[in-house]
Amino acid sequence: MTLPRILTRYRAQIEEGLLNSLKGKSLLYAILRYHVGLEDERGTPAKNMGKLLRPSLVLFTAEELGGEMARALKGALALELIHNFSLIHDDIQDCDPTRRGQPTVWKRYGVAQAINLGDLMQALAVTQALTVGKEAMSVLMEATVEMIEGQGFDLDFEGKAVGVNSYLKMIDKKTGALIRCAFRMGGLIACVPSGVVKDLGKMGKELGRAFQIRDDLLGIWGDKVITGKPQGTDIRRKKKSFPVAIALARASGEEREILKEVYAKEKILAQDVKCVIAVMERLGVRSLAEEQIADHLDRAGTWLAKIPFSQRGKEEMKELIDYMAIREK
Amino acid sequence: MTLPRILTRYRAQIEEGLLNSLKGKSLLYAILRYHVGLEDERGTPAKNMGKLLRPSLVLFTAEELGGEMARALKGALALELIHNFSLIHDDIQDCDPTRRGQPTVWKRYGVAQAINLGDLMQALAVTQALTVGKEAMSVLMEATVEMIEGQGFDLDFEGKAVGVNSYLKMIDKKTGALIRCAFRMGGLIACVPSGVVKDLGKMGKELGRAFQIRDDLLGIWGDKVITGKPQGTDIRRKKKSFPVAIALARASGEEREILKEVYAKEKILAQDVKCVIAVMERLGVRSLAEEQIADHLDRAGTWLAKIPFSQRGKEEMKELIDYMAIREK
Repeated sequence: MTLPRILTRYRAQIEEGLLNSLKGKSLLYAILRYHVGLEDERGTPAKNMGKLLRPSLVLFTAEELGGEMARALKGALALELIHNFSLIHDDIQDCDPTRRGQPTVWKRYGVAQAINLGDLMQALAVTQALTVGKEAMSVLMEATVEMIEGQGFDLDFEGKAVGVNSYLKMIDKKTGALIRCAFRMGGLIACVPSGVVKDLGKMGKELGRAFQIRDDLLGIWGDKVITGKPQGTDIRRKKKSFPVAIALARASGEEREILKEVYAKEKILAQDVKCVIAVMERLGVRSLAEEQIADHLDRAGTWLAKIPFSQRGKEEMKELIDYMAIREK
Repeated sequence: MTLPRILTRYRAQIEEGLLNSLKGKSLLYAILRYHVGLEDERGTPAKNMGKLLRPSLVLFTAEELGGEMARALKGALALELIHNFSLIHDDIQDCDPTRRGQPTVWKRYGVAQAINLGDLMQALAVTQALTVGKEAMSVLMEATVEMIEGQGFDLDFEGKAVGVNSYLKMIDKKTGALIRCAFRMGGLIACVPSGVVKDLGKMGKELGRAFQIRDDLLGIWGDKVITGKPQGTDIRRKKKSFPVAIALARASGEEREILKEVYAKEKILAQDVKCVIAVMERLGVRSLAEEQIADHLDRAGTWLAKIPFSQRGKEEMKELIDYMAIREK
């Protein structure tokens, strides 16, 4: 699958910037470079980074709207560091032993140090943002608080059956906040009128939902070789996700009983995962989720039409929107 | 023991400010209020806060040097929130079940949510500092990064015999950074010349060392009823502390063997704690630590003489310095 241009154009400068933000000499910084994929387990330079979606969106938006790119890069890096601090802590909270095919920070260095390293990454993110301007900084911190609140609600959901609406409210915070922030920050750095910042935020909200629901689909039906996680991982971990919320909302009779039984178990086995997937498929959960994704991406397109990007910018954004519906990792 | 005036004068406004910073409606904010001691386990308003040393120092310094007090309060609150985020995470890292006589956050809400709540507190601290001014904000973030680095070194020390110098370097970061920051921030808010900010930092460094070494003494010889922890707690937890570093440096022959044996054990028993304390007393560790504290406080006094506080301010600061040598909690 060809990557959209927005996700490739800024990669080199983001990588260089991250290397610079995390250049500290002690072991702590080496572990942070390892976490983001700039170094491998032996400290050798590596290129094992994620999609870099959020910083790419900041840079793209700022560039399209005429912002100063040096300042945009600072904001972009700060946002990516915030995202990464949350990943270090998420991996502990979810007991995830691997990320992008490598052992997670807590798995290699223990939970106590991993907590500390996430803290360090958060503080470095803010340090990186100190000169990005007051408004952009405010938007960044607002989004950070929202993301953490979303994670708090998610943790609080554990063991509870969650409705579709509560689920969407949670992901708007947990995932949506940083994606909205990426667009809004790009706009603020370009000093666009507040109406445009609002529209950017609305486009970001739709894209964020589509992004998370696609993530949830991949967490159940994703290709193990591509995602790096076995099929059905999110079911085995009892993760609250869109397919689960939909399934619980639609199941009745025997199917409802199966779901309740499995989710009440202390430990979910491979056979249980198969059962749940079978129920989901009978209920048409997968295609319902795909419809939802298409729906949110459509709405993102409607907001896009209102934003004063160049013609080329709109085409590139459309390319990214289309990619969101079919991405495999 | 009468508290020094610096620790009582600003308490009411700091409490009110914290209540305002943590006023969010969801359960997450209620837990943060519980953690800082503004509410009890049932959510009833309480006054169970700590010493509030750091924010009191910001306010005192700014007031003495003619800073704008509304701005100083923001900086003071941000610093106290940074300190408190680190406490939430420290309690997880040290497996501490209680703080100020109450169950810790992780003990009540689980490790995953406690990690998240520490993250929230850090983000709220930065949010609080957004309008405190660029320089003060930079100093705050520098200190935050340093504190976290110090904690990282401390965690990295685990299971290793640590020399006195490494230990002092570690506490200069872990504890010293925020205390230095309190004085420097107060000075920056009052727009004093950079030489005064430097002297404030040097006084803070000495005070920070004395503070931590006294803490270490209380962690071994402190009165259970006053500190809220059983005698010898830090030994049972194999915490690296000044007395331990001194003991290891001075012990030879049989005494060295006893220390090595105890610290090599998986689990330290009450009898082991008694043995270690007996060795420490034979080696004169306690009085050596007390001398060190007196020495650092003397040096703090020398820096104090250079700082353009009022006569009354100097007297009050001297009162605080004297208190640091004898405080029981």
